[in-house]
Amino acid sequence: MKFLLFTLFGIVQFLSLASGKSIPKNKFSHKSLKEMKEEIAGYEDVAESLINLAVYGKAKNRSYERLSYFIDTVGPRLSGSKNLDRAIEIMYKNLQQNGLDSVHLEPVKIPHWERGEESAVMLVPRLHKMAILGLGSSIGTPPEGITAEVLVVTSFDELQRRSPEAKGKIVVFNQPFVSYAITVQYRTHGAVEAAKVGALASLIRSVASFSVYSPHTGNQEYQDDVPKIPTACITVEDAEMLTRLASYGKTIVIQLKMGAKTYPDTVSFNTVAEITGDKYPDQIVLVSGHLDSWDVGQGALDDGGGSFISWEALSLIKDLGLRPKRTLRLVLWTAEEQGGIGALQYYRLHKGNISNYSLVMESDAGTFLPTGLQFSGSERARDIMKEIMGLLKHLNVTKVFTGGEGTDINFWIQAGVPGASLSNDLFKYFTFHHTYGDTMTVMNPKQMNVAAAVWSVVAYVVADLEEMLPRT
Amino acid sequence: MKFLLFTLFGIVQFLSLASGKSIPKNKFSHKSLKEMKEEIAGYEDVAESLINLAVYGKAKNRSYERLSYFIDTVGPRLSGSKNLDRAIEIMYKNLQQNGLDSVHLEPVKIPHWERGEESAVMLVPRLHKMAILGLGSSIGTPPEGITAEVLVVTSFDELQRRSPEAKGKIVVFNQPFVSYAITVQYRTHGAVEAAKVGALASLIRSVASFSVYSPHTGNQEYQDDVPKIPTACITVEDAEMLTRLASYGKTIVIQLKMGAKTYPDTVSFNTVAEITGDKYPDQIVLVSGHLDSWDVGQGALDDGGGSFISWEALSLIKDLGLRPKRTLRLVLWTAEEQGGIGALQYYRLHKGNISNYSLVMESDAGTFLPTGLQFSGSERARDIMKEIMGLLKHLNVTKVFTGGEGTDINFWIQAGVPGASLSNDLFKYFTFHHTYGDTMTVMNPKQMNVAAAVWSVVAYVVADLEEMLPRT
Repeated sequence: MKFLLFTLFGIVQFLSLASGKSIPKNKFSHKSLKEMKEEIAGYEDVAESLINLAVYGKAKNRSYERLSYFIDTVGPRLSGSKNLDRAIEIMYKNLQQNGLDSVHLEPVKIPHWERGEESAVMLVPRLHKMAILGLGSSIGTPPEGITAEVLVVTSFDELQRRSPEAKGKIVVFNQPFVSYAITVQYRTHGAVEAAKVGALASLIRSVASFSVYSPHTGNQEYQDDVPKIPTACITVEDAEMLTRLASYGKTIVIQLKMGAKTYPDTVSFNTVAEITGDKYPDQIVLVSGHLDSWDVGQGALDDGGGSFISWEALSLIKDLGLRPKRTLRLVLWTAEEQGGIGALQYYRLHKGNISNYSLVMESDAGTFLPTGLQFSGSERARDIMKEIMGLLKHLNVTKVFTGGEGTDINFWIQAGVPGASLSNDLFKYFTFHHTYGDTMTVMNPKQMNVAAAVWSVVAYVVADLEEMLPRT
Repeated sequence: MKFLLFTLFGIVQFLSLASGKSIPKNKFSHKSLKEMKEEIAGYEDVAESLINLAVYGKAKNRSYERLSYFIDTVGPRLSGSKNLDRAIEIMYKNLQQNGLDSVHLEPVKIPHWERGEESAVMLVPRLHKMAILGLGSSIGTPPEGITAEVLVVTSFDELQRRSPEAKGKIVVFNQPFVSYAITVQYRTHGAVEAAKVGALASLIRSVASFSVYSPHTGNQEYQDDVPKIPTACITVEDAEMLTRLASYGKTIVIQLKMGAKTYPDTVSFNTVAEITGDKYPDQIVLVSGHLDSWDVGQGALDDGGGSFISWEALSLIKDLGLRPKRTLRLVLWTAEEQGGIGALQYYRLHKGNISNYSLVMESDAGTFLPTGLQFSGSERARDIMKEIMGLLKHLNVTKVFTGGEGTDINFWIQAGVPGASLSNDLFKYFTFHHTYGDTMTVMNPKQMNVAAAVWSVVAYVVADLEEMLPRT
């Protein structure tokens, strides 16, 4: 069976090679859906081969094994850290050893922030050492810390209503978790909003779907016209307790110490490798994840998994001797956690070629068992993606959802390029996201096999269709 | 409806009082199951009233609210700590203010161990600060710590097979979680087994059903004839990583520092209160939880919840003006976590009266939504318990499972007294058990209402039946 399939692919490849390189008059698809269905149906055998190789064949568990060795031996990879430099160096070598095309590094200036030592102790009404994680880009406290009474609020609205009470206090935000996109606003803007009403510091309930007293870090943003105050996340448990203590009428006093410091920007790199297209090499299907992580945990979930299934997608395609018509470009972004710094640099460098980007893909929301593909694009493009996902029927991962955004690919999506990501178990993802618990223990080889299979089939087929995905 | 029920209870109580106190010829039940069924069916209205009061009435959420105020303001209550003294003092007052009978304290000598500062750092193959929790009764390390190569094993059997490799090393146990009862053997005996083969210290994978990089503490036991070595739990995540690093052939070196110290025993108390029996006051139905906790987290789950639904059971019965034939005795144990120290003292003091104990109940495995009752006793007694649980049909908590043991009541169960506990979600329980995550966040007022209703109905009916539960 496999031999026959390989032979068939060989013929397909030969015909493809024989057809030579040419730029189509109109590269965006204008075919009817019926024609597209017929074209995509022709990829059934290729899809089966990629699935077999990834899930049952010699590449089974490879993405997990590559990742676990990398994660266990390198550890966390914060923007500006030596670990991130080392990770990029290792991945550059890995991609070269894998024999991928055009392996290279694209330089980016990235932030260098370090958390230093940090602690928070509730002194009144009783002594209680609190787990905290300072937020990326936060300033530190004076060495003696900030000791102040606490104002606990559950929303920005409540802070506004109670703004006369905030001056000289530590503002604690105990906002409930609604969704990451909604609730993360408190982490990102909590310090600024608290500073506007005269707070000395802000402590923010971790943006978490589930907690075992687990603080979550993440980035935050100061505003030029607002005083900078130190800010950290506390656990869901402590945030809820502080709300209850306040409801009992107790005065609460916390001492916050943070050694956080921002150093001058450093040079880092986006790590790039390709399978160069055979017919339309200037046209791109971009497959990506980010190599940097936070300094806590080990960045296995966020985004080791996404980076390694993206690499795996190219490895699988290469293993089968496939070369699609347009270029499959793997990008392992740097400094995503600081706000997509590497991705912005890449966009600035490459946006002149934007009309040649058929699809931008990023896996940065888990590589557990995917439930389908999240997609952002025109209705015609969505219809095509639905057909492609039909090729994954044996994995039972055929759904196309709305979504598809990702910090690193949003620049392209906002400029009209179709985007895709994996649909995943977000409750699990936001249990571990940005915590000490982001380790290989949450990763599962079988789930990564399936995620890699889906990723490779989508990437390959879109890269090999005669025409680019249509835009609006 | 409620008024009518109250009136009915009043009459029942009056008749009961009027009947006077007498000791039955044979106090253990010899009734046929049919007769028992008829007798228990007579409690339907009482059961409904207890349920209504606990779940829908004025006592709704009371056990949660009492508990949260207690937990938030007192915090953790380690054996030998001032917090435990304070907790006992507060509960003594609470029980007096509740107007319960015979509120008193029974003195117990308990251990006083403190963890002090502790840390573990993997120095080789890369720098990695590990989360640890020293185990209760462990000795500390020298101030400079113990720095040694690591031997990772996954079982006592593997340790035996590889015993020549263990000398002078830190032995890491990465045993999989099977069940608490099975897996906790590694926490309890890991240090002794490692010391027997010459290890300098032992680090043990936390006994956890789920982890967000959460170390779990707990007790451990030295043996007189085996050298004492320091021992702590590490996270599931680190235990798994160490196994993988070893599988790559990496040398692993860890520096362990523990400031743990055992101080002289101190005096503590079991806290006791009653609703004294009306007809057979010397006969006892014991309802219990333990007031002490570990020093991490806040002992909300383990065992604040169990203590407070046990108190609530008596409160509910008192609120309805009920007084059962035999005495309902609430005991809030001290120093359970050190091996049921308070319970052992109670057993020694009271075992002379063992023939008068109808049932011993302990809630120490969660007060989430109970799925039924765990029961240990004769088949005849089990049949009676099944009938009693039938009174809880409107709560859909009617099942009787085997089990029912608990550290603090096992002395009695082993001596033949029937025992009962709540059947609960153990996966959830062992996610938070003995961690920093044992806080009010895991508790739920509605679930506690139901747990308290079940607890009160079982306690009341067993205490009020004409005869004691039969033994084997």
